[in-house]
Amino acid sequence: MANEFAILNQQGAARAGALTTISGRVNTPVFMPIATAGAVKGMLAEEVADLGAQIILSNTYHLILRPGLEALKKLGGIKNLMNWSGPLLTDSGGYQVYSLSKLTKLREEGVEFSSHLDGSKLLLTPESSIQAQGIIGADIMMQLDQVLAGGADYADSKLAMERSLRWAERCLTTRDSDYPHRLLFGIVQGGSFLDLRERSAEGLKLLGFDGYAIGGLSVGEERADCYRVVKKIAALLPVDQPRYFMGGGMPEEILYYVSQGVDMFDCVLPTRNARHGQIFLWKEDPKEAVKKAFALAQTEAPSEAVAEALYNKVNITNECYILDASPLDQWSDYLPGQQYSRAYLRHLFRAEELLGLRLASGINLGFYLRMMSELRGVIMAGGNHAESK
Amino acid sequence: MANEFAILNQQGAARAGALTTISGRVNTPVFMPIATAGAVKGMLAEEVADLGAQIILSNTYHLILRPGLEALKKLGGIKNLMNWSGPLLTDSGGYQVYSLSKLTKLREEGVEFSSHLDGSKLLLTPESSIQAQGIIGADIMMQLDQVLAGGADYADSKLAMERSLRWAERCLTTRDSDYPHRLLFGIVQGGSFLDLRERSAEGLKLLGFDGYAIGGLSVGEERADCYRVVKKIAALLPVDQPRYFMGGGMPEEILYYVSQGVDMFDCVLPTRNARHGQIFLWKEDPKEAVKKAFALAQTEAPSEAVAEALYNKVNITNECYILDASPLDQWSDYLPGQQYSRAYLRHLFRAEELLGLRLASGINLGFYLRMMSELRGVIMAGGNHAESK
Repeated sequence: MANEFAILNQQGAARAGALTTISGRVNTPVFMPIATAGAVKGMLAEEVADLGAQIILSNTYHLILRPGLEALKKLGGIKNLMNWSGPLLTDSGGYQVYSLSKLTKLREEGVEFSSHLDGSKLLLTPESSIQAQGIIGADIMMQLDQVLAGGADYADSKLAMERSLRWAERCLTTRDSDYPHRLLFGIVQGGSFLDLRERSAEGLKLLGFDGYAIGGLSVGEERADCYRVVKKIAALLPVDQPRYFMGGGMPEEILYYVSQGVDMFDCVLPTRNARHGQIFLWKEDPKEAVKKAFALAQTEAPSEAVAEALYNKVNITNECYILDASPLDQWSDYLPGQQYSRAYLRHLFRAEELLGLRLASGINLGFYLRMMSELRGVIMAGGNHAESK
Repeated sequence: MANEFAILNQQGAARAGALTTISGRVNTPVFMPIATAGAVKGMLAEEVADLGAQIILSNTYHLILRPGLEALKKLGGIKNLMNWSGPLLTDSGGYQVYSLSKLTKLREEGVEFSSHLDGSKLLLTPESSIQAQGIIGADIMMQLDQVLAGGADYADSKLAMERSLRWAERCLTTRDSDYPHRLLFGIVQGGSFLDLRERSAEGLKLLGFDGYAIGGLSVGEERADCYRVVKKIAALLPVDQPRYFMGGGMPEEILYYVSQGVDMFDCVLPTRNARHGQIFLWKEDPKEAVKKAFALAQTEAPSEAVAEALYNKVNITNECYILDASPLDQWSDYLPGQQYSRAYLRHLFRAEELLGLRLASGINLGFYLRMMSELRGVIMAGGNHAESK
């Protein structure tokens, strides 16, 4: 495919870009809210769009099981079902096979697994994963890769990386023949072994993808290790293609990765933290907070300092909020965040009212999405700040 | 207090009226969505208002336990906390003491109970119930009554009814001295014994309330028994005061009670059914459906026939909806009900996505609230249809 990614401005290694898909343009750096099975936790698609989401992510594994590919084919895909008209990225299904299903048998052909719902046996191959993603209606598809547990040794990491490369090629072939207008991203594997990561990146570049993802991180490793690996890998990837860090992370981590040239992110943290009453509240006007925090991230300041400049992480169930009539977050882009009090949200969590979860999710997603739009603004506005130091 | 209720039109025993509270006017017949602990299941107060709710109901028992009266006093009441500016009705707390709490000791003074949350002992008296409702911020308060299990015998029903009358007087005294501008409703008790119900109504009328509720029904009795009792009791109540049927029921029941002169309703059915994927879908244009169904109810047609004219009760998890791309309900006042498909809602329930519960609750509440507004229209427009037969 032609290169669908344009870099609009740079600041050090950080880039502000625009990725064109058949369902519209995505301005990067971008955060993709997760609509696991076709819904972002408790929110209507139009509400997710109103919060500033440009692209969402759905999980192929979940959608294969429910509602199933036959139903999705007849219903015109998950975007049609959920009333989302913007771009959609789907994962390959491989990660959930590894983390949720039982009795996984791994062969060169693909991975055989039992549904965690009814135990039925299914086979996921590079070809069937691309077919599934096509039927689901992905604008951006991910290659099937072999997922390893964190802390895998060199030999296992090497075998998995090499198999992932072979699978990458098969995914590419299927995409080219069946879905030529969809984008396909390769995934750099190799664990924490930089030489394996390098060979993975080289192999993928030779095949030629529309974007490159960094996979197999955010699985429990030390943050410093993760930073080190991402920094090295980002530098190995083509400069003129989008780079996607899969499955992470905290706001300060995203700022660091952006400073190293990563463009795309997804993470369960905004909604998972919401479930436990943990909300991200702006430290000050988001424009100022992101500017300061990103400047710190660019100088590789400790991530605690970046977080400190950016947000207060609050557990709203704490006693201290019982009489706090102040707005949840006066800076929130999520309107109820300005309209409802901390005392109310605390009460909703204590009383186990569903609405509490909805408000907390809205606050957190609003935080992440605003952070990204401010980041785009900073990178677009700036000269080459980091390099001029 | 002055009579705050005006009857605007009648059709047989059915009335269209307007009840004035210090927080605004309520047009009757009216359905009151339940905001148990200060939230209508998963919905923001503004969304409940947008659906056409004029008044909501909260539960004193739950709010006494969480966030507690001290907090509510400092926060300016539950309406302030939840951003609801319209009228609020609260129950006395007695029903939940009976149904939820343990170790209840009943004395003439009041009822002693243990919190179902932490076991702490509390005493609810007629005086403390009114005080609590005042602090919560009720515009309409309910007297504390002695609640009996369904099927109680004559002797027990008589004792409970007589005690409820004595408690009613004490509630009135407290209201008059402490909350003179709030409305207070008495509750007619006496089980299925019509002579007891009659004595209860007479006793309450002598005391003089702002409205009269029919309590102790909708607790598992046969529908025909309930209809018979309500018909008799409604006829015993002052014509120039609002009448409130507590805790019921299905749409066809509400239509029948309205035809017998009942003005106010609350019920958990719209949201409880939603939890199980059961949704009420309009049979045809709501204006026509309610007109036909109400005409049937007025002639005391079998309630199945009334229901049949009014709605289809659908279990959206059924197999038959898997490929049904038609809107949930083209007639729904709840906008997502028009915008999202049956196939999507079925999928959300199967995938246990929170959004499914939210959509189903919105559909059902929208149905009940629209039914009431159409009913008001029919009664306002009509001549005295039922009596002219």
